Amino acid sequence: MSDTKPDLAGIVKMSREFANRHRVDKGAKFKLGKCDPADTGHLDDEDKRRAQEALAIGREALAQLQDKLYAQDRWSVLLVFQAMDAAGKDGVIKHVMSGVNPQGCEVHSFKAPTTEELDHDYLWRCAKRLPERGRIGIFNRSYYEEVLVVKVHQGILAAQKLPPSLVTKRVWDERYEDIRGFERYLSRNGTVVRKFFLHVSRAEQKERFLERIHEPEKNWKFSAADVRERAYWKDYMAAYETMIRETATPHSPWYVVPADNKWYTRLVVAAAVVDALASLDLHYPVIDAKQRVELAAARKSLLAEKK
Amino acid sequence: MSDTKPDLAGIVKMSREFANRHRVDKGAKFKLGKCDPADTGHLDDEDKRRAQEALAIGREALAQLQDKLYAQDRWSVLLVFQAMDAAGKDGVIKHVMSGVNPQGCEVHSFKAPTTEELDHDYLWRCAKRLPERGRIGIFNRSYYEEVLVVKVHQGILAAQKLPPSLVTKRVWDERYEDIRGFERYLSRNGTVVRKFFLHVSRAEQKERFLERIHEPEKNWKFSAADVRERAYWKDYMAAYETMIRETATPHSPWYVVPADNKWYTRLVVAAAVVDALASLDLHYPVIDAKQRVELAAARKSLLAEKK
Repeated sequence: MSDTKPDLAGIVKMSREFANRHRVDKGAKFKLGKCDPADTGHLDDEDKRRAQEALAIGREALAQLQDKLYAQDRWSVLLVFQAMDAAGKDGVIKHVMSGVNPQGCEVHSFKAPTTEELDHDYLWRCAKRLPERGRIGIFNRSYYEEVLVVKVHQGILAAQKLPPSLVTKRVWDERYEDIRGFERYLSRNGTVVRKFFLHVSRAEQKERFLERIHEPEKNWKFSAADVRERAYWKDYMAAYETMIRETATPHSPWYVVPADNKWYTRLVVAAAVVDALASLDLHYPVIDAKQRVELAAARKSLLAEKK
Repeated sequence: MSDTKPDLAGIVKMSREFANRHRVDKGAKFKLGKCDPADTGHLDDEDKRRAQEALAIGREALAQLQDKLYAQDRWSVLLVFQAMDAAGKDGVIKHVMSGVNPQGCEVHSFKAPTTEELDHDYLWRCAKRLPERGRIGIFNRSYYEEVLVVKVHQGILAAQKLPPSLVTKRVWDERYEDIRGFERYLSRNGTVVRKFFLHVSRAEQKERFLERIHEPEKNWKFSAADVRERAYWKDYMAAYETMIRETATPHSPWYVVPADNKWYTRLVVAAAVVDALASLDLHYPVIDAKQRVELAAARKSLLAEKK
């Protein structure tokens, strides 16, 4: 990080390089074991102290880009967040996205499906909440739960009311394929998809749980069920690894974001979102010749008004 | 404004007093003619220079209160914005609400109804978009259009596909009554309703339109149809006055916000929103004895884990 504040082009360039270290867009050979949740790249303690400032710069760039996205009203951006509990999803959304005009940004949290939702295919509830053109949509959890918690606890699949003949041993491969198809379709129709796996270590999760138990104002965030899920840690990591292998593509990449240091997690996500927006041909709408004539007529009519 | 930064309680008190100058919660005797769009209260040029700073303080208070609203997950807040074109609705939403965690805030803009929406009663599309508990919902235009543009241009009413026998001369009175009933119901069920009429003068609107025509990067915001609506200015003002008379109540007050000076408009809205949130018994959820036992057990189990 340098001392002078760079311009937007500079911020975009830095963001791309910074985020690319954690980008996976060809899944086939991906190995989760090679990703260190405590990684902070080439950043040192001096940078950590200045992380808030850097994040503020990223947020400002984001607000500028988002203003154009909204005015242009052609592209939309979908940000998907997946993680183990206490990895910091809520904090990332709050700290990276506060500052963006709420008129152009919407967050949807997906919890256990309702009975109405279970009466539909699993993409239905997410498809309904895709962002409009011009908007950034954020999914706090998503259809990816269908190849994570549902895969780890296969009893959930049994409760999904699928016709039994459709549930074969190919069900997971089919889900990966269908999700790839869904995201390919979205990207072909103007929705830019970026996916974030906040990669927290089992040890750091334990510390964060103990903190939630220890601090009264954090008690409400804690659920004993979350601790029980720790028994399935290895299964979850295997499910995340396969999910990333199967669904990371150039048009819908995953970012595997080290999540043991919150300040670093937030910088990476901010950088990746800036990069995603900057990759689009964003500009304020330009009017054509016919509209120009209309403007001139409107101006004349306004100026001719009696007081 | 004083020089030292007040604490939250101080900000809340100041906000209430400040916003109350423009609050209408008993509509019967309301006269729009008595409200000056250029009013800036007791604030002078010195205050105007410091308005950005004051707004930042308000936004910070708002973010704090909203964090509790979200955690507590009991109340929701609905903010309704109505105004003539170019009064500054979009700017108010952007400048007052940016900074709030987007996970707890959603904005819905209501434009001309779709054919699906016209196949339902007029509250339907708005009711579907009411904020969840714990959230702030913002309606950029709303069901109030039904007693504004629809009343000024009664051809729109004819296109609403109502059974003809239901469209009598009592239709507007019925709409006011139904809207009052709807908002009373919402407030009885935990949704706090606050309504803002951004009151811009006809002369200031003209200036802003000319600006949109003059500045290329604002051209896209301009529509020639907006100029034509100026011919109905008096009808609109009459419709706004009657609307406020008929629907301003203590539980769902209107704020008639002077809108010729954007800095002042934003301060009043921020103050009214801070006041609305502060009027609730917001607190982080407190756990009960049974949950406390669970926490202790979870802690024990975490500490006993083998590495």
